[in-house]
Amino acid sequence: MSLNILVIGGVALGPKAAARAKRLLPDSTITMIDQGEYISYGGCGIPYFVGGDVPQMNGLRTTNAGVVRDEAFFRELKGVNAICHTRALSIDRRGKTVTVEDTKTGEQRQLAYDKLVIATGSSPRIPPIPGHDLKNVTSVTCLEAAQAVQQQCAASKVSHAVIIGAGFIGLEMAVALADMWGIKVTVIEMLDHILPAQLCKNFSKMAQYDLEKLGVTVLTGETVKELKGKDGAVCQVITDKRVLDAEEVIFSIGVTPNSKIASDAGIACHPRGGILVNSHMQTSDPDIYAGGDVVVVRNLISGDLSYLPLGSMANRQGRVIGTNVAGGDATFEGVVGSWCVKLNKMHASGAGLTLHQARMAGFDAIEVCMEGTDKAHFYPGHTNVSLAVIVDRKSQRVLGIQGISDNGEAVKARTDAVAAMLQIGKPTLNDLSNLEVCYAPPFASAMDVINAAGNVAENVVSGRHHYISPDDFVELWEKRDENHYFFVDARPPKAGKPIEARHPGQYLSLPMEEFNERAAREIPTDRPVALICNTGTRAYEMQLKLREMGIETVNSAGGHTALRKRGDEEKF
Amino acid sequence: MSLNILVIGGVALGPKAAARAKRLLPDSTITMIDQGEYISYGGCGIPYFVGGDVPQMNGLRTTNAGVVRDEAFFRELKGVNAICHTRALSIDRRGKTVTVEDTKTGEQRQLAYDKLVIATGSSPRIPPIPGHDLKNVTSVTCLEAAQAVQQQCAASKVSHAVIIGAGFIGLEMAVALADMWGIKVTVIEMLDHILPAQLCKNFSKMAQYDLEKLGVTVLTGETVKELKGKDGAVCQVITDKRVLDAEEVIFSIGVTPNSKIASDAGIACHPRGGILVNSHMQTSDPDIYAGGDVVVVRNLISGDLSYLPLGSMANRQGRVIGTNVAGGDATFEGVVGSWCVKLNKMHASGAGLTLHQARMAGFDAIEVCMEGTDKAHFYPGHTNVSLAVIVDRKSQRVLGIQGISDNGEAVKARTDAVAAMLQIGKPTLNDLSNLEVCYAPPFASAMDVINAAGNVAENVVSGRHHYISPDDFVELWEKRDENHYFFVDARPPKAGKPIEARHPGQYLSLPMEEFNERAAREIPTDRPVALICNTGTRAYEMQLKLREMGIETVNSAGGHTALRKRGDEEKF
Repeated sequence: MSLNILVIGGVALGPKAAARAKRLLPDSTITMIDQGEYISYGGCGIPYFVGGDVPQMNGLRTTNAGVVRDEAFFRELKGVNAICHTRALSIDRRGKTVTVEDTKTGEQRQLAYDKLVIATGSSPRIPPIPGHDLKNVTSVTCLEAAQAVQQQCAASKVSHAVIIGAGFIGLEMAVALADMWGIKVTVIEMLDHILPAQLCKNFSKMAQYDLEKLGVTVLTGETVKELKGKDGAVCQVITDKRVLDAEEVIFSIGVTPNSKIASDAGIACHPRGGILVNSHMQTSDPDIYAGGDVVVVRNLISGDLSYLPLGSMANRQGRVIGTNVAGGDATFEGVVGSWCVKLNKMHASGAGLTLHQARMAGFDAIEVCMEGTDKAHFYPGHTNVSLAVIVDRKSQRVLGIQGISDNGEAVKARTDAVAAMLQIGKPTLNDLSNLEVCYAPPFASAMDVINAAGNVAENVVSGRHHYISPDDFVELWEKRDENHYFFVDARPPKAGKPIEARHPGQYLSLPMEEFNERAAREIPTDRPVALICNTGTRAYEMQLKLREMGIETVNSAGGHTALRKRGDEEKF
Repeated sequence: MSLNILVIGGVALGPKAAARAKRLLPDSTITMIDQGEYISYGGCGIPYFVGGDVPQMNGLRTTNAGVVRDEAFFRELKGVNAICHTRALSIDRRGKTVTVEDTKTGEQRQLAYDKLVIATGSSPRIPPIPGHDLKNVTSVTCLEAAQAVQQQCAASKVSHAVIIGAGFIGLEMAVALADMWGIKVTVIEMLDHILPAQLCKNFSKMAQYDLEKLGVTVLTGETVKELKGKDGAVCQVITDKRVLDAEEVIFSIGVTPNSKIASDAGIACHPRGGILVNSHMQTSDPDIYAGGDVVVVRNLISGDLSYLPLGSMANRQGRVIGTNVAGGDATFEGVVGSWCVKLNKMHASGAGLTLHQARMAGFDAIEVCMEGTDKAHFYPGHTNVSLAVIVDRKSQRVLGIQGISDNGEAVKARTDAVAAMLQIGKPTLNDLSNLEVCYAPPFASAMDVINAAGNVAENVVSGRHHYISPDDFVELWEKRDENHYFFVDARPPKAGKPIEARHPGQYLSLPMEEFNERAAREIPTDRPVALICNTGTRAYEMQLKLREMGIETVNSAGGHTALRKRGDEEKF
């Protein structure tokens, strides 16, 4: 079968779809146009180029054999007619042509197609505040912008940088600028915690503390009002609370799908933008496919449409489209929203719904955080892993997972496993408790941290474990003179005694080993009691014992380990 | 509710079930007996104690707070009446008592129960060959034996050690003895490759080469006939092929369930041993539960009963039993057979069925191996990951996954994700291609290696990719003077030219970039053609192009990367 396949867009999805289609249908003519100079580059690698981990910008453009993926590469090695500097202006669905324009000469022409692939991606959101168009204000979503930032840094022209928006690229850029270039970086997030669409507030505090250790300043609940310039270049950022110096400003407040060309052509789109596709990645016009940052996709957990612009998604969808335009039958059923990010020393990952998203989707959801270890606790080099499970209270259905640890691959492994379950079924807490992840002491505990997370969540959901978040625990502690809570520390005396000494009558060190002997005598029954231990486990056991004695308590999720990761230890 | 719960067995499952039941039913009386001196220890950590990673044996017996888990620990902290040195002799199901014997005094008595948990574990297989009972012949499945081996090594009494059986413990002990103690270690495996029940032959060769780099000798397809002694201690191992010196011999040929006490009491067992349980881990007697190494479990992929003695399994099942004896409703539906193992520099993992197991279970299965990277190829420190997918040809149902890499957590993450899918559904190659694992360049490629593995398998299964295993490729190469195969290397010239120079007329360096120009002229059409590249990707593209020219070829799975990991590079 010989087909004329046209692909609009040459980054991520476009090249994948084009090359796959050509392999399946060697007789076909495949044309891929892109408006830019560079195609098929790894945009997600931009922060690592700016941060020096990837020494050359071309590192993001080469195959693993070191060959640059340019027009000639696609023509000669992939048999794809790649054309740069060419923008698609409009689609004539009846005539099956696309009008394109040469971005250098302005010349227009028509390209015909049998099958069309729209891979136009997204554009960064830029708020219409004064000064948004000043020099050295960017979104670093393309190689040209990345190179400009890198050159500014290398020329020592940046002492202060302000990142507006605490999403993935914002935080990755914050680390790159602070770590590699020693720049004083401030991150400003409008919402009350960083990575607000991904991470629970508790883990977000851990992520923030990790960034602060690198010298990054994080300001949440703060809004940028204006950018001030000098000689046409940005020099200050004005927020609703302060004025900050800034020779470089990076917007990282999300992207919007470039779906106008589709909606103009009458292809069905979401009211808020983004092309609608079926599970074959086919638009409302069966000869036109779309994927990547320009489409909205079904969330497999909520059933709602969602927008998830990620390079990995584009690559996978690209192959599905490549198969289908060539007459095959591949499907892409939807997304569960997996992600991971490298911060300073910490790494975070997640999949599924956040608590907020779960409640918006109508679930009676709660979020249970816990602390565990990546490996057997007797194995050298083991480290701490924090996991959060988002679960529907009644059905015990698992809706989401989040993790943060200095062992990024460990949290990724647990997150990937839950993501896989969410993708193919409707896992419950029982499935999580029994999740059969690989076990050997150098890689896991016999009761893996993901199983333990399921167990903790089950104890909470079933009402056995009266559990409060570290935020709530810290608040109880800070208002102890008003609420008269009595605090009991179940850790060995070495850990608890120093705090007791600072707060006599309010904070008691009562190691689990001495419980039977001392509890009845030393724990008051006329005041509410808050328990804490190292990670939450011992205090849970103490809670059960106290309940037997008629004393109801609350237990701080993740114990002092969580507080330490949040930078809250000094409050005690 | 107050119940009298008796647990037979104090390692892994027993303690977990006992402590969980006590937490759920604080009024109950829980007794846990064990015939040994030590209870609740991490048996899987034994090789790491012998190898010095865990400096003290007690490290395997302590909680993560450093408290030793002995009788007093269970009594005081867990409210469980733990009794060591006490062996269960028989169960009177009608009278609901167990006759037990004090292993020190020989005194017998009856213990009553309302609910009984059988957690008697397994015993190592010892073949009845002459000399199997000599001194310094062991299976290192208990702490006492581990300590004895460690003391022999520390006293420099072992120059040669022989490991009989290339399973997990055997290989972990081989590494421990060779790496920590500089002992000359020989591993003898009766079957034709190491980890025969877990790993495909290709990856097994990689694992073997990794061990050989540490100085371990691996002998496959060889059978031990006799152990010779001197002054009562082992000094030689006689195989069907040779005689080896050995001051220490370790059997690692599997374990058998200690289910006799159950079958004697009329509880339903598998004909080959192992107690049968339902999804509540309940035996044929509803008041008696069993789990861990003493039961057989349902394999969720094949539907068959299988025996999977792993500490992690025991821990998870222990919690299920603890919940259920206390009147709860937890289930354990079956297993997918996840595992991982640390070798020398390499780490391997897997889940699901091997090719052999899949065929035995009636699937029309094939195995597809491939090579990829753990991180984005432009990210520093990325390394190679080998993955194998076992898949049913017709339905494209994924039946198993295996991996090997020097980044153990990377293969574990991919394996865990597939294990999770196998546990909760019936994934297909399309699910694997679209598996939504977390993505950021420090952790994965945009097209993750697990997606790529699904893609490669799909190309093979659909007949597009004519693919042969490295074993077959090496065989073709070694017999090239008979079979007249012509070999084409699609890598850049730097890699292929030196081999071409050594084998002119047989091996052609034809970089993909030069294909269009040279292929028609230089690739013969009168001889069969075998392709190879770096990881298999370029050669696959070349295969498609040659097919267009009417030339059918075979492509070596994983290319030269796989050959290098197997130690086969020098053959070229």
